[in-house]
Amino acid sequence: MEIEIINTGSELMLGRILNTHQQWLCSQLADLGFVVTRQVAIADSGPAIQAAVKESLSRADLIITTGGLGPTSDDITRDLIAELTKTKLVLHNETLQRIEQFFAQRKRLMPESTGVQAMIPEGALVLKNERGTAPGLVMEIGRAEISRNIPRTSEKLLLIMLPGPPRELQPMFSEQVAPILRQHFPNQSQFVCRNLKTTGLGESFVEEKIAAPLKALAARGLQIGYCARVGEVDVRLSGEGANAGGLVSEAEVIVRNCLGSHIFGEGDDSLERVVVRLLSEQSQTLALAESCTGGFISNRITNVPGASTVFCNGLVTYSNESKQTFLGVNPATLEKHGAVSEETAREMAEGARTRSKSNYALAVTGIAGPGGGTEEKPVGTVFIALATSQKTIFEHHVFRYDRATFKYVTAQQALNLLRLALLK
Amino acid sequence: MEIEIINTGSELMLGRILNTHQQWLCSQLADLGFVVTRQVAIADSGPAIQAAVKESLSRADLIITTGGLGPTSDDITRDLIAELTKTKLVLHNETLQRIEQFFAQRKRLMPESTGVQAMIPEGALVLKNERGTAPGLVMEIGRAEISRNIPRTSEKLLLIMLPGPPRELQPMFSEQVAPILRQHFPNQSQFVCRNLKTTGLGESFVEEKIAAPLKALAARGLQIGYCARVGEVDVRLSGEGANAGGLVSEAEVIVRNCLGSHIFGEGDDSLERVVVRLLSEQSQTLALAESCTGGFISNRITNVPGASTVFCNGLVTYSNESKQTFLGVNPATLEKHGAVSEETAREMAEGARTRSKSNYALAVTGIAGPGGGTEEKPVGTVFIALATSQKTIFEHHVFRYDRATFKYVTAQQALNLLRLALLK
Repeated sequence: MEIEIINTGSELMLGRILNTHQQWLCSQLADLGFVVTRQVAIADSGPAIQAAVKESLSRADLIITTGGLGPTSDDITRDLIAELTKTKLVLHNETLQRIEQFFAQRKRLMPESTGVQAMIPEGALVLKNERGTAPGLVMEIGRAEISRNIPRTSEKLLLIMLPGPPRELQPMFSEQVAPILRQHFPNQSQFVCRNLKTTGLGESFVEEKIAAPLKALAARGLQIGYCARVGEVDVRLSGEGANAGGLVSEAEVIVRNCLGSHIFGEGDDSLERVVVRLLSEQSQTLALAESCTGGFISNRITNVPGASTVFCNGLVTYSNESKQTFLGVNPATLEKHGAVSEETAREMAEGARTRSKSNYALAVTGIAGPGGGTEEKPVGTVFIALATSQKTIFEHHVFRYDRATFKYVTAQQALNLLRLALLK
Repeated sequence: MEIEIINTGSELMLGRILNTHQQWLCSQLADLGFVVTRQVAIADSGPAIQAAVKESLSRADLIITTGGLGPTSDDITRDLIAELTKTKLVLHNETLQRIEQFFAQRKRLMPESTGVQAMIPEGALVLKNERGTAPGLVMEIGRAEISRNIPRTSEKLLLIMLPGPPRELQPMFSEQVAPILRQHFPNQSQFVCRNLKTTGLGESFVEEKIAAPLKALAARGLQIGYCARVGEVDVRLSGEGANAGGLVSEAEVIVRNCLGSHIFGEGDDSLERVVVRLLSEQSQTLALAESCTGGFISNRITNVPGASTVFCNGLVTYSNESKQTFLGVNPATLEKHGAVSEETAREMAEGARTRSKSNYALAVTGIAGPGGGTEEKPVGTVFIALATSQKTIFEHHVFRYDRATFKYVTAQQALNLLRLALLK
């Protein structure tokens, strides 16, 4: 089955925004058993949109477009698709009323241009937009109506238009599109995919450890994929058809044996989620003392729903003075060893633990750059300390990355230090 | 000129990772005057990659592929493109030596599979990889060698293959690809684009305020685009050709007049960058007291290089106890009004300001959800307070979003409150 996503938006082509729709839609679709075969992004221009949609119509069984349904003059997807499929645009009264209500409820004037969003291709199914004004649209397009060379899995192709803003698109997909897909493609072949998340080993070494042991399963149809990120490698095990579940489960056992505690989670797990889960299971609490990561670790921890039961506080002590005031770091330590040192990291962790009355406290101090490096302590130097009721352990690294990546890698390393301590 | 980007990676199609390459490459290319016309993502499968590359070869003047150059078995881009363009793969000795050095310097064993990365299509230009092992490749492909129907702007098309990891791709593009593009396309027509960033007005209202005043310029070729995000709308003014600079500048004056202080920046400006700049210009310092945003505002502020000169500290006081310990919030206030209240927000801001000895202190307390809401204070309730030397001001909102969006919107609102205070 061919599934194509078309993202429209000149801001995408100019690199002004990240295309978060691709990831979100692809992952939602994969969970439903639909693997996207192609994603295309093009500008809000008539010829570009029509060319992309026309191509997809000749190939795909399911097409999802995002964007271009709004009220402004560069919102042209609906009109172009109506033209391409030779469908009339008609006024959808219920939608017009919903839009009028939307503005009335918010006690805001309705700009005149907004009404255009109630014009829909004749016969299209309207997807209600609970969070905005542009409705989504579903068109069933008969095979006979379009040229084609390739055999198809279903009689009619489905073309679904979704609005651009993620907070409108996402609930619309989950609540309205997913049930339609299940109904329209009941015989969609079973696709099973498991993703194991590892840390502490490079991509080649991960493959070297598992490729040979998985050889027999690969011959039986197991697919193995690797995705390397900074400080993290995903191992993706997948298969199609009736045996896929068993095949993937067998493979998982082998991979877990080969990689041990390098595996920190699965699916969409993140180190912060794993750490919050472990702390919660063990009824332990955590405090953070961050210098160079500037609140990034606190932010990651508090992104996890329920973090409040294990997280006491984070102290982002950027200045030397604040390390003394809020963590009780000794001025003599700062004077003698500097703010970026093993000694300061230890005092930060111990101070945070004592003052927060937490079971664990994690502290990081380093030089994120671009400025601030010296010969002895170059940009990228970082000290991480973990204070527990028994002892304080520490690590020293040099992470030579840009500022944002440095914060990310340091946070990964710190969270993994805590994870390994919690596993003991 | 047709410019196409092809991103390969099964992890993209399964939604396991965000396609950050698209944004990064599109924005870098736009800065050089090259606007990408189409971006495609496909899985690491032979037929999918060949189909996509073949299509692009028939249309584009410049093709950039990302990914699939690494050492593992799903890295097949190089081989497929060599096959498609009927080019032999030959061993590139210099690259093999670089790869061996790469491992030797890091005192790591070189997995045997790594050597495959030194096989390159005959005649291709090799782009050195300073951060990893897979080199980039540039192929010039003669027009005669591929079928085509459309007139071209250059004799030969350029096909550039870049490695997948962002920290390898990005310096390779900036240092090696950009000069090649300037040399290969010297007559690239001038494209001028200015992006103005606004906050506090919906997309329709932004258009309503500026569309009529810009009408005359639009008739002369000015292009106007809108990009709405949560709590933010970008206005993009662009034009092509010799007059583009003047046209866009005239338009900018009109838009600035119409939208006033709703415009907080331009280009890639962020509220945090603007706030750090204003604080720095006025030699003022900032402390933060965050509850529901959990360190997100601190993280944003410390993402700005040079933030250390204006940012004292951030106190992520998640628990009631930590609000008392680190900010001196009165237990009676918490008891009587609750942690999520105007009174607590005020005491948090004032406590943070006094204890941090900063000029400004910004405090937020609210209910991020999904749990914790009550009838009186539903999920999404937030109180923001700003303490200055003269007074403490506050705002109350209800932001009904998911947890991550809630944190984002709250941070936007808080940073904008500070920005407007600094502008006075």
